[in-house]
Amino acid sequence: MGVAPGIFAPGRLNAITDVEGVRVGQVTVSRGDGVRTGVTAVFPHGDNAYLSRVPAAVYVGNGFGKFVGSTQVKELGELETPVLLTCTLCVWKAADAMADWMLRQPGMESVRSINPVVGETNDGGLNDIRQRPLANEDVWRALEGARSGPVQEGSVGAGTGTVAFGWKGGIGTSSRVLPAALGGWTVGVLVQTNYGGVLQVLGAPVGRELGRYAFQDVLEAGPADDRGDGSVIVIVATDAPVGDRNLGRIAARTMMGLGRTGSSASNGSGDYALAFSTSPQLRRSFAADRQPASELANDATTALFQATVEAVEEAVYNSLFMATTVTGNGQTVPAIPLDRVRDILGRHGISAEK
Amino acid sequence: MGVAPGIFAPGRLNAITDVEGVRVGQVTVSRGDGVRTGVTAVFPHGDNAYLSRVPAAVYVGNGFGKFVGSTQVKELGELETPVLLTCTLCVWKAADAMADWMLRQPGMESVRSINPVVGETNDGGLNDIRQRPLANEDVWRALEGARSGPVQEGSVGAGTGTVAFGWKGGIGTSSRVLPAALGGWTVGVLVQTNYGGVLQVLGAPVGRELGRYAFQDVLEAGPADDRGDGSVIVIVATDAPVGDRNLGRIAARTMMGLGRTGSSASNGSGDYALAFSTSPQLRRSFAADRQPASELANDATTALFQATVEAVEEAVYNSLFMATTVTGNGQTVPAIPLDRVRDILGRHGISAEK
Amino acid sequence: MGVAPGIFAPGRLNAITDVEGVRVGQVTVSRGDGVRTGVTAVFPHGDNAYLSRVPAAVYVGNGFGKFVGSTQVKELGELETPVLLTCTLCVWKAADAMADWMLRQPGMESVRSINPVVGETNDGGLNDIRQRPLANEDVWRALEGARSGPVQEGSVGAGTGTVAFGWKGGIGTSSRVLPAALGGWTVGVLVQTNYGGVLQVLGAPVGRELGRYAFQDVLEAGPADDRGDGSVIVIVATDAPVGDRNLGRIAARTMMGLGRTGSSASNGSGDYALAFSTSPQLRRSFAADRQPASELANDATTALFQATVEAVEEAVYNSLFMATTVTGNGQTVPAIPLDRVRDILGRHGISAEK
Amino acid sequence: MGVAPGIFAPGRLNAITDVEGVRVGQVTVSRGDGVRTGVTAVFPHGDNAYLSRVPAAVYVGNGFGKFVGSTQVKELGELETPVLLTCTLCVWKAADAMADWMLRQPGMESVRSINPVVGETNDGGLNDIRQRPLANEDVWRALEGARSGPVQEGSVGAGTGTVAFGWKGGIGTSSRVLPAALGGWTVGVLVQTNYGGVLQVLGAPVGRELGRYAFQDVLEAGPADDRGDGSVIVIVATDAPVGDRNLGRIAARTMMGLGRTGSSASNGSGDYALAFSTSPQLRRSFAADRQPASELANDATTALFQATVEAVEEAVYNSLFMATTVTGNGQTVPAIPLDRVRDILGRHGISAEK
Repeated sequence: MGVAPGIFAPGRLNAITDVEGVRVGQVTVSRGDGVRTGVTAVFPHGDNAYLSRVPAAVYVGNGFGKFVGSTQVKELGELETPVLLTCTLCVWKAADAMADWMLRQPGMESVRSINPVVGETNDGGLNDIRQRPLANEDVWRALEGARSGPVQEGSVGAGTGTVAFGWKGGIGTSSRVLPAALGGWTVGVLVQTNYGGVLQVLGAPVGRELGRYAFQDVLEAGPADDRGDGSVIVIVATDAPVGDRNLGRIAARTMMGLGRTGSSASNGSGDYALAFSTSPQLRRSFAADRQPASELANDATTALFQATVEAVEEAVYNSLFMATTVTGNGQTVPAIPLDRVRDILGRHGISAEK
Repeated sequence: MGVAPGIFAPGRLNAITDVEGVRVGQVTVSRGDGVRTGVTAVFPHGDNAYLSRVPAAVYVGNGFGKFVGSTQVKELGELETPVLLTCTLCVWKAADAMADWMLRQPGMESVRSINPVVGETNDGGLNDIRQRPLANEDVWRALEGARSGPVQEGSVGAGTGTVAFGWKGGIGTSSRVLPAALGGWTVGVLVQTNYGGVLQVLGAPVGRELGRYAFQDVLEAGPADDRGDGSVIVIVATDAPVGDRNLGRIAARTMMGLGRTGSSASNGSGDYALAFSTSPQLRRSFAADRQPASELANDATTALFQATVEAVEEAVYNSLFMATTVTGNGQTVPAIPLDRVRDILGRHGISAEK
Repeated sequence: MGVAPGIFAPGRLNAITDVEGVRVGQVTVSRGDGVRTGVTAVFPHGDNAYLSRVPAAVYVGNGFGKFVGSTQVKELGELETPVLLTCTLCVWKAADAMADWMLRQPGMESVRSINPVVGETNDGGLNDIRQRPLANEDVWRALEGARSGPVQEGSVGAGTGTVAFGWKGGIGTSSRVLPAALGGWTVGVLVQTNYGGVLQVLGAPVGRELGRYAFQDVLEAGPADDRGDGSVIVIVATDAPVGDRNLGRIAARTMMGLGRTGSSASNGSGDYALAFSTSPQLRRSFAADRQPASELANDATTALFQATVEAVEEAVYNSLFMATTVTGNGQTVPAIPLDRVRDILGRHGISAEK
Repeated sequence: MGVAPGIFAPGRLNAITDVEGVRVGQVTVSRGDGVRTGVTAVFPHGDNAYLSRVPAAVYVGNGFGKFVGSTQVKELGELETPVLLTCTLCVWKAADAMADWMLRQPGMESVRSINPVVGETNDGGLNDIRQRPLANEDVWRALEGARSGPVQEGSVGAGTGTVAFGWKGGIGTSSRVLPAALGGWTVGVLVQTNYGGVLQVLGAPVGRELGRYAFQDVLEAGPADDRGDGSVIVIVATDAPVGDRNLGRIAARTMMGLGRTGSSASNGSGDYALAFSTSPQLRRSFAADRQPASELANDATTALFQATVEAVEEAVYNSLFMATTVTGNGQTVPAIPLDRVRDILGRHGISAEK
């Protein structure tokens, strides 16, 4: 689509996996007419996440919804499992299944406490969510299938049944690489989009021109809309050596990227972000007395903030542009019409710009 | 034991159920040699907690461990399920089972999002926790068996396998009633004790005199101890019309009560508190446009803070004094020896004092 | 400029004073070659703010810088003075001067504690800030001159010496009125802009096209830039009956509006927002035992969130478009060239759209 | 008094200055019949605090009152000035005077932003606080007179006019040294006590036996009391290499120490704590790109938490036991009667115990 927000360049894959070591596994759960959901797993590195921990932070943009495990991440400043995304009423089964899987890994024989981190958005339109339709095996397959390399986007994994801005949403990803003079670090983002508002693409008023936006029913006596409730989860990975406090600041910036796409974080939208650093210098080995670290100073974070906002914005667009029409649970949610979007962007001088 | 901290009088039952409408259900799960755990459920009132919501707040004293559902309570200022307590690796199954149970209640047919609140402490010494030994039915029985009236304390429900200050801990409860001139409100507390430190009872150095306290191994070349890791959950109920912000302040005061018992909130102790108001004036009816309220002003909270700290301190003592010796998972944890405690208190002028 | 972001209509004045009762007073302090600063005061209503308090909340977007009085606003959920904006090193003198002024008001004779709220941004380029060049009288004049009606924008009051996106920034204001079906409430915003990033106006890449944006020095070997450090303060007023928790959520949304203008909240930018409700139903009379209230329910906040984001975005543009070139302290910062901006917007299809 | 709470031993001076490098300066401001206040300054080390920064954290136990500079400490995790304590309505003058003093230090010629940290409690009973009776010179003398070595306690500096538990309070200090097997670190505490509740000393009910405690008027139809409003500030210093997140956890534990003395943090009591680490390994040199660090791991904090709670408890007792009767502003507040306290402690078996 030629839509590349911001001033920094994307990485090779334009994906969260541009951050070295990050792996993504996705399982789409589609059964019968009613079940359209799935699981997306993000691993911070190739080793056991419990035994070799990364600094991490959670930011609660709007705390509607669940983000299992968030309080411990905040207190200890670290992640001890991969991060799972799934459907709202699936989170507890997903957490339990991931705990089970982790406890069976080598070296975990005497572990009696673990803090699975699981985010969710509510795909209860296309998905018969009251079933809590997730099996342990779905989670285990996502965990075991995690890979580096390209990441599938759109109606896949935890994005199978999600809806964004009234169109089919899903999984999106993007990355930015800082120039060498700014450290050369990579920032990668993965989103699960299921929220809304008044869609704008690089500022172009796509939502209004397509006739599908929050409060349209009131303003134009149009069809009822759902005010954009639904939620979005953002995962940010970076190889920059950033400690937990500054990761918290990075996580907070994701809301500015969401704002650029037309969100105002409606009451019912659970908007959570988790950021982690894969820097080997900040890896915390389980049971060590010391936490060796050579973090970037506060002032070096500005470029990372900028890269984060850019990658979030683009990941959202990618989740929309890559999604395919999905029917389930008696409903159909169409993919956004790319031709019309392209036309709107053209009229706003956007195609020419990059 | 004649141990009644503070200046305010307890309620009739000296229990969280002195707050009108509050109900408690407990199921002890004890199977074979290895499973010693359970569930304790606290209902804010007699109706459906989702359809008729109470204002609530969570305070994270030390965020090690999980407190499922906490972010939504904070964002929306309300509780939409009963509160469950259970074992660390049981929380996700408990949350899923409670969601299942709630969704089957009358009036819940179209609900697609719900936020179960579940706390935990780690009973992994007496309990083979890696099994995650909780069945849906255990949770459902706790929910369905909830009653007003006296509350069983000690080695019961979610306190079946917990350890406090090196002795058998468990469930404890207490209450305080304010004088009429201070509003006449009731504050009730229920604790699940599984933490430690240097036990003191009304200031008397019980832990040191009994030879069982944190860091004793270092200071006296005594046996290794576990530094008090393990966690404690505190639930505070009140009929005072207190909104979510002031409930958050009440929840924060619970840490002062824990401090009085000898805790310094060790790194590995997940110390969480949840406070809610049962005031009918603050009940939020599902889907209402307005939240009618006539809250107490900030300045009226001081007496509630005092009552909370007192009731927390006493509930902890009650959890210890009512606990019975438990053997499980190859270990035995004795009840605290009441005769010796009584003797220590006597030498510190405590029996005489009330 | 024909730049009107969003879906909701502005109020009559397109200013924070569209919220009934809100008053603004501004004093520009310009002395000799070096002093270019000032004070902007915002009153929540026409009475004594201490004796008749409004619910309020502060959101810390990026806590670089000071926001005097913020912790008490958070704890008590209320404002007890007008809000002042001024220069970074002027905040303490401003707070002291406002305390002095408040204590001299009728009815305040026995008051021994007061919590002035003062925000700031750093105008230390155009202003010889090390002098802390503010006299008590400057503050008192701003307080005594507060008026309802139109609000002067640009290089005035606390915006006299500020710089935004490399151009002259300053004071900006905007408002939105919800349709009657959404309650008909008004949301008003006032900003003090002194921050940066990569300026975009309704998405059009104005910063890049004008050749003045963060990291331009690295990306184009251009002149050094300051990464947008400097800060922005946002004040949000509404007549909607919204309690302190939901005001906190409104305050958080201001960051999404700032994101739309091209900010990523750089490390050195102190980005604070304060929101208050003028609803008479939520007014807290000093020393009352009860806080009567009939707040909007959580779900009614979504439209207020949308209005807030829109008004913040527009207030920022207004602060830039109304600012005039200022010389001081040996530097000149030009106003943004409106002709060139208009041309850029035109090429992005923006002039046609409203 | 033989009152030594806890299991760890105090340092040589039993003062915050047992932490190497920490310096304290105090100026008592006593003028005429009405002014009884002062300033206490705590320096983290012997160098310029702005150019060589220590990691730090603020904990807001009860956010009534001001704690100037707190938001930036939280955002950046560091302190850039000494910490001042003074009277409530003096904080802004104190902050301005310290900024002035800092800007005049060598190496500060081009600094245009600085974040003074100033805490306060309200001595408005003994002190004619409405005058805001602090001169720049008072602050400068406190800063210039800062010394290592013994610290004066009681009715001195910022404790000149404060009242605690109905008796004369003031400045108190204490320290704890961990055994070598726990790292050998020192924790030092300094408090400014001006709060109340129901005084207990090592659990002995001193407040009730002396007939002076919160709510006594209601419970015994005794004289009116002030519910303990008034505030307490706690400063914690340690040479342990603890980063800002874990310093925040240490700061939170101070509330447990206050709880042990009989506080329940009344509505009007501004209870703030600030903790910093003097470890040279964590010193942040101004303008460095990296923040080198070798922090203690999370698990090593437990002993520091214990030491903190102990030292806070003892510092409070010291502030009471060292205070002298003060008359000012038409009131007299007596020192606590040590003989009677000693007698009460004796009857609670306390003198015998250490």
